[in-house]
Amino acid sequence: MKELEDKIKKDGEILPGEVLKVGKFLNQQIDTELLKHMAEEVERLFKGTKITKVLTIEASGIPFATAIAMKLSVPMVFAKKSITSNVSGEIYTAKVYSYTHKNTNHISVSKAYLNEGDEVLICDDFLANGKALEGLISIVEEAKAHVAGAVVEIEKVYQNGGNSLREKGYRIESLAGITRMTDEDIEFN
Amino acid sequence: MKELEDKIKKDGEILPGEVLKVGKFLNQQIDTELLKHMAEEVERLFKGTKITKVLTIEASGIPFATAIAMKLSVPMVFAKKSITSNVSGEIYTAKVYSYTHKNTNHISVSKAYLNEGDEVLICDDFLANGKALEGLISIVEEAKAHVAGAVVEIEKVYQNGGNSLREKGYRIESLAGITRMTDEDIEFN
Repeated sequence: MKELEDKIKKDGEILPGEVLKVGKFLNQQIDTELLKHMAEEVERLFKGTKITKVLTIEASGIPFATAIAMKLSVPMVFAKKSITSNVSGEIYTAKVYSYTHKNTNHISVSKAYLNEGDEVLICDDFLANGKALEGLISIVEEAKAHVAGAVVEIEKVYQNGGNSLREKGYRIESLAGITRMTDEDIEFN
Repeated sequence: MKELEDKIKKDGEILPGEVLKVGKFLNQQIDTELLKHMAEEVERLFKGTKITKVLTIEASGIPFATAIAMKLSVPMVFAKKSITSNVSGEIYTAKVYSYTHKNTNHISVSKAYLNEGDEVLICDDFLANGKALEGLISIVEEAKAHVAGAVVEIEKVYQNGGNSLREKGYRIESLAGITRMTDEDIEFN
């Protein structure tokens, strides 16, 4: 999506360790005009695909998931990054390792909010190693719901998380796919 | 807002300790049709008021703030519930005591995302004791920006956080104001 690629080139910051900072417009301060256009693009990409629910993970995935779910007129659910208590077995959980923060989060979703028969579109801001998407997919499948697909704002294609999931048969879309990133330049696919 | 009040009566759950659970439609699974109508109502309430930015706090305030900011076509910013590092003084911070979780969070917003001259509409899902709003207000004022007002989905009016802020001169709106809550019934103002 050219508008997003241009915005990343203009307002994204590359920090040491191949960290791409997009807080100015994508995941701390959100450019809502761009957000509307991204939701329209997701609607176009998944036209003809049955979707009954949008799932994401707190916190930075929520604006994107909210805009998409509003556009598709379906409920949005977000996974929490912690487990408060599961004594009564009321939540689905998955372990997600974060390469950025070098720790493991136990993510969770209340069982009441994912049902057999749901056609779930998973959304997130970034896809790099794919660990967050894998965790969300495992939760959807534990609920006996179906993964209709996944869409992320930015995919670091060279980190292979997306391609590994595509090889397993999942439909993974990204609005901007980065194939190469240096301190001076970013290349998209 | 009658649609929200009806939804709370129908799908809200009252738990021990005057906890109102609205996860089914408001802050874990989000009913996006209701969300659209709430954003329209906020636009109506603040018609004629200059707003340049919408501010909330992660995570459950984000869907509401996203929908409002999209409706008003202004950027949305969310405060984080933790401080990773402030050695270079790049963030505004405030302490927020949570009566629900009985702990103090240090919330933070990057200085880059709040500027002198900004007219800020603060949004959140709940208003009870008002500690979260107070923290967000202090951050806006530290940034020399102006609080255009605040709007919450649900106000527990009997807990006085909202009225205490109104007495200080802030404009505080709530889409559903609860004046009394028992195990059997909820009364709105």
